[in-house]
Order: sequence, then C-alpha cells, then structure tokens
Amino acid sequence: MELQSDEAGAFIPGARAVVAPTASGGLNGIRFAVKDLFDVAGFITTGGNPDWGRTHGVAAGTAPVVAALLAAGAEMVGKTKTVELAFGLTGENPWHGTPQNPRMPARLPGGSSCGSVAAVASGQVPLALGSDTGGSVRIPASYCGLYGIRPSQGAISLAGTVPLAPSLDTPGWFTREAALLERVGSVLLPGEHGRLGGPLLAVAEVWTNAEPEVAAALRPALARLAALFGPVLTVEPAPEGIAALYAHYRAIQGDEAWTTHGGWITGAKPALSPAVAARFRGAAAVTTAQAAAARGVRQRMQDRLRGLLAGGAVLVQPTSPAPAPLCDAGDAALEALRERTIGATAIAGLAGLPEVTLPAAAVRVPDGDAPVGLSLIGGFGRDRALLSLAREAAALLDLP
Amino acid sequence: MELQSDEAGAFIPGARAVVAPTASGGLNGIRFAVKDLFDVAGFITTGGNPDWGRTHGVAAGTAPVVAALLAAGAEMVGKTKTVELAFGLTGENPWHGTPQNPRMPARLPGGSSCGSVAAVASGQVPLALGSDTGGSVRIPASYCGLYGIRPSQGAISLAGTVPLAPSLDTPGWFTREAALLERVGSVLLPGEHGRLGGPLLAVAEVWTNAEPEVAAALRPALARLAALFGPVLTVEPAPEGIAALYAHYRAIQGDEAWTTHGGWITGAKPALSPAVAARFRGAAAVTTAQAAAARGVRQRMQDRLRGLLAGGAVLVQPTSPAPAPLCDAGDAALEALRERTIGATAIAGLAGLPEVTLPAAAVRVPDGDAPVGLSLIGGFGRDRALLSLAREAAALLDLP
Repeated sequence: MELQSDEAGAFIPGARAVVAPTASGGLNGIRFAVKDLFDVAGFITTGGNPDWGRTHGVAAGTAPVVAALLAAGAEMVGKTKTVELAFGLTGENPWHGTPQNPRMPARLPGGSSCGSVAAVASGQVPLALGSDTGGSVRIPASYCGLYGIRPSQGAISLAGTVPLAPSLDTPGWFTREAALLERVGSVLLPGEHGRLGGPLLAVAEVWTNAEPEVAAALRPALARLAALFGPVLTVEPAPEGIAALYAHYRAIQGDEAWTTHGGWITGAKPALSPAVAARFRGAAAVTTAQAAAARGVRQRMQDRLRGLLAGGAVLVQPTSPAPAPLCDAGDAALEALRERTIGATAIAGLAGLPEVTLPAAAVRVPDGDAPVGLSLIGGFGRDRALLSLAREAAALLDLP
Repeated sequence: MELQSDEAGAFIPGARAVVAPTASGGLNGIRFAVKDLFDVAGFITTGGNPDWGRTHGVAAGTAPVVAALLAAGAEMVGKTKTVELAFGLTGENPWHGTPQNPRMPARLPGGSSCGSVAAVASGQVPLALGSDTGGSVRIPASYCGLYGIRPSQGAISLAGTVPLAPSLDTPGWFTREAALLERVGSVLLPGEHGRLGGPLLAVAEVWTNAEPEVAAALRPALARLAALFGPVLTVEPAPEGIAALYAHYRAIQGDEAWTTHGGWITGAKPALSPAVAARFRGAAAVTTAQAAAARGVRQRMQDRLRGLLAGGAVLVQPTSPAPAPLCDAGDAALEALRERTIGATAIAGLAGLPEVTLPAAAVRVPDGDAPVGLSLIGGFGRDRALLSLAREAAALLDLP
C-alpha cells in the first residue's frame, strides 16, 4: 500500500508505517491514523515529546481501542503529531513541527490531536483516532471542518494510552463524513436501543460567548434542525457561568495532570516547550482545596445535566467560540482564546457527556472561509443514538 | 356530625349533607367537600347552573374519584359552588352567589372551583375536590393561599363528572398542608418508584409574564429550592410564546366545549350568566382549521416537554401572573388577566403534565398581603413523585 505525501505534516516522520488489519469487519478497507498517545506494539509512543519517548521505550502492546479498529478490518497507516502530553488546544509542537490546517494554511490546526485532524482534513486518511480532555478532538475538528466525537466518559477504554487528567480523558475520532463517524461508533461503543427524541436545547451562554459572526453563521443550521425536533428551546445548564466552569475545569485537570506527570517532570527533567512547561507549572500550583471544590461543582453539574438529558433532550452549541486562530496570533491572544474555549467545552467535559461536532458552517475571514462546528451533546451513555442523530442532522443540513 | 357555618359561601345551600365513608383507610377522619361537577348518588349535580341541574336530575351513581375518597375513610360534607360548567377562572356565580376569598375578602376566590377553594381556605374542611381544565384548581389555590394539584392528563378517572373540554379536563384537590395533598395522591393515583431528581428549570417567559411584584415575591423561594436541586436553570419550553399558547388552548377548549355542550345550549336554551354565555359563543365560533392547527402544536409541545422532563427535571414558575383580582375589577380587566393567566397555565395543560402549586409567598396590596403560588411541573405520570417533592419543598420553605 503506497502512502500519500504528507504535505500537511500530520504524521511523525519516523512513525509512518502500515499495520495490517487483524480481522475482517465493519471497517474493511478503511485506512486510519493514530494520535501518538496510543500504544501500538513495536512503535515508540512519544506523547508528542522526544524525552517521553526516550524514557518510555517501545510499546509492547497495542491499545485496545486501536486493536478494535484493526480487528474490524481497518488498516493503520501511521502515528500522528500531538501537542506534548496532549496539554494544549492550538496544535503547536516545536519538536515534530506544527501540522498545517489543511483548510486554512495561515491558521493553526487546533489540538492537541493536531496530526490526526490534519491527516483527515488533508485527505490522506478518512479516519483518525485522537483524544479529548478539554476539547482536543472537538476544537481541531471545528477548526479544520471535520466531524469529531468525544464519547461519554469511560465508554471506551483508555488502556495503553498516555494519560493527562484521567477523570477527564477520553478517546475520540475524526472523519470527513457523518456516516463513517457513526460506523466507527458501532465498532467501538456498546449497543443501545432507541433514539434521541429531543427537545433541542440551545445553551444560551455558549451562544453569546461565541464571536457574533460564529453564532450568526451557525444559527441557520440551528433553525433547520427544528425540522427534526420542533422549536429549539434555550437553556442555561451551567448557571455558574463559563468563566467559573473554566476555573473548575482547570483545577481538576491541573490536579490530575500534576499527579500523573509531576514525578516524571521533576525526576526525568524532560525538555518541554515553554507553553506546555508553563501549563505544568500552573498544574503544580493548584491547591487541594481548589480541586476538591471543583469536584463538588462537577458532581452537582453531572447530576443536573444527566437529569436534564436523560429523557432524550440534546444540547446544541457552537463547538468553539471562534474559528482557528492565525499561526502568528501571539501567546496572550491564544491563552485568552483557550480560556473562553474551555468554558464551552467543559460543559460536556465536566458532565462526562458525549459530544459530536458537525462542520456546519464557515465564517468569512481575510484569508478565506474558516470552518466552524456545531456541537450536539446527548445524555450520558447515549453515544450511539447521538451519532445516529448527527447523521440525520448532517443529511438535513446537506453536509457530507 | 355538626357542620360549621358557611360564612365564606363555599357550599351550595341545598347540598350540605354528610356522606359517610364506605370503608376505612388512609384518609380516616378527613372531611372533604366536592365541587358540584362530580356526581354523588342522591344529589343533583348542578354544574353551577340551575338549568343544568333541572335538565339532568338526580345522580344515580357516585363518581369514582369521590367513591375512592369515601372508601379511604374520608367523609363528604357537601357540594361546593362552581363557575357554570367550569367555564371561567374568577369564581363568579350569579345563581348560587360568588364565594368569598377567605384570605382577601375584597377579592375574588378564583375558579372555576371557587366553592372548594373557599371551603378549605375558610377552615371548614381540610380537603376539597375540584377540577382543572385551564387552571380551575391551580388559580384559586394561588389566589387563596392553598396547595392544589392538577394531575397528569388521564391519571384519574373523570367518569361521573360534567365535562367541559374532555382532552383538557382533570380532577384536582385543595389542601392547607402539603402532607395531606400527598396523602390524597397516594389514594387516588397509581404507585410509582423513584423521586424527581431535578434539575429545576425556571420557565423564563412565565416569570417575565408575571407582575414584577409577584415574581419578586416568589424569587426567594426559588433560590431556597436550590438546596434541593442545585442551581436553578432557565429554559424556554414554549418558544411559541404565551400569547400563542393561549390562542391554541382557546381553540381546543372552545372546539371541545361546543361539541360537549352546544346541543344542550341550543336545545334546552338554559339561562347562562352573560360572561359564560359569551365564552360559549366564542367556543361556537372556533373553526375546525383553528382547532386542528392547535392540536398539531399541542402534540409537538407534548413530545418536547415530555422529553425535557422524562429524566426527572421539574419546571418551576409563578402559578398565576397576579394575585386575586378585586371583586369590582371589571370585565375588561378580568378578561385580559384571564388570557395572560392561561398562557402560563396552558404549559402543563396542553402538555398534559402534573402541576402542584404551593402557597409560597404573598404580595403587599392596599387591602393586605395577597397570597401567590409557586408551581412545580413534573414529567408525565410522575404525579406521586411530584407530590413528594412538593412536600420536601414546603418543608424547606417553612410552609405548612
């Protein structure tokens, strides 16, 4: 099997190699890429950082989620770049080189699953695995005009995967078509009966948090979805407000990230990019009291949102408040965008709910038409029904 | 058993008579009154109109809902006044005399279950049966400072009851205490397991539809309920808007009311009070197309609201936009209030959902402190869980 050229810089150059399917199944003939956070036997898992790879060696086994794709007939073609240890949303990596945003070359691809999104958006593969802690599948999918899913917390095993903040980490995947997004779900997710019958609940603060052009570009799609669900209701599922959600997310993520990696960072003294090193310093500074308070808020938010959605209701919101930032946006602007973005992605993230982003619209920017995603968030464990719904919604919106 | 004097004018004078319990049970020792819309064997059911009584005669049987109370050990002490054929919300009846609002003597008691609310609010009985088509239990309960329930559509039989608009009619009951409201539910309603876990959803437009003083008086109760549920979310469950809900309610009610009573009105030519006669003329003028369109809206609203609440969420809203109107308010003001009121009561009414009103607050008016109710609306068929929740909420709010 010949590999295409990788002009988007999606793959880690030393990790472009074909791994054949182990059986035949629902993904026969599908080629896929894997974020270099998942173990594949015989490959070094770098986690986006050369020192991580050096200190951890060659993986002996293959992560179950990768093995499940291979066993369904899919063929792996290589491992993709990631923000170091998945700790970032823009997709930058100074060690392997930041992948291109294939849709908007002057802009960042988003991350941390930057190579996976670039591999699919550039047309090299129809499917790539990523992971999502605070938005690392959803945000790059929105930036590059792809479908992406963050499943329910715990629905798919993360064994054999480099962790960041275990209670928030999930795998996820990117496709260019809604039908394949769903087909992969039928391989990786437990079966379920019934569909999501609505109502569709627009998350008011996330719509106002988005840039006005983003909200305006997505609103026609929202109006057309009324054909599936009847009138769209508005709801404020997180009266704490987006700024507070970001603070609580940051406390839990930081506490767990330092618990997970603090020993390695202080012991092995790895070279980290300045931005990721700064995030780990912030993680180390989270107090036990902050993390405990945040976990209390999360528990109540989980109860509340699971109650709200248990009957088949679906939240709908802009995936990201903005299109992909320009590559030269500058650190201060990127950090401000990160906080505003996580306030929105933390709704599904803290509540552990499945979220699918659809490439529903684009906004006019000086360098072209930048994609923006529309997210559907379903009840806990309703991942398969949410994927079916996303396919129906895509058909209604004349999307691929 | 000696009967108290009826200074509130709650009972129909000729229908004050004790009917003994038929068995012993959960309502032993409870005396109750019955709106004169329910058949009790040996009594004439007047439906609030002398010509109805004259043309229909003495009831041969007892309505099952009355029989169930008697079989649970409760003792009936008489039949109470009602707006003619239950077609009105203010509680006026020129034939039997309008009952007093025991809490606010210069104000109307609300209706159509005006005698039942007056009998309980004046302390004569702890329990009275009413009926609710567009608010006829909820509104008088709010006006007179009582608890009241409108159950899920169809949850309790209306056999042996004068109908108004069968797809909207429900029985209901009034008490001064939350515990008895719940205890009656355990006699009349099917059992269920589980509790309503929230979240609590404030219905935004009903809060803004209420007079500012009413909303302000009820908001502290809403804030205190956060102790049961966590933060109160806001939702717009009826994006059609309150004015449209009133129009759709009016079309369905009118269509059914004329189907039910048009033959009697044109055939028997009964004497009706001017206000009720005008409502029937309006009912006769509803077109088939209006009613069909309204039924389509109702179906979609049912689907939507049942989906929203199926997971245990609870809507919360002011029961009435205003306290009881003054007895001399005038027909135009009362008609405007009726439209605004039904826009709010039609949410549970059209969706067929159970609603409980709690005597949660009072607003200062020139003649005293006028009660106003806070409503909780639960998922379809969750009546028993809603009654338990209302009792918990009452305890939290230091209500009886």
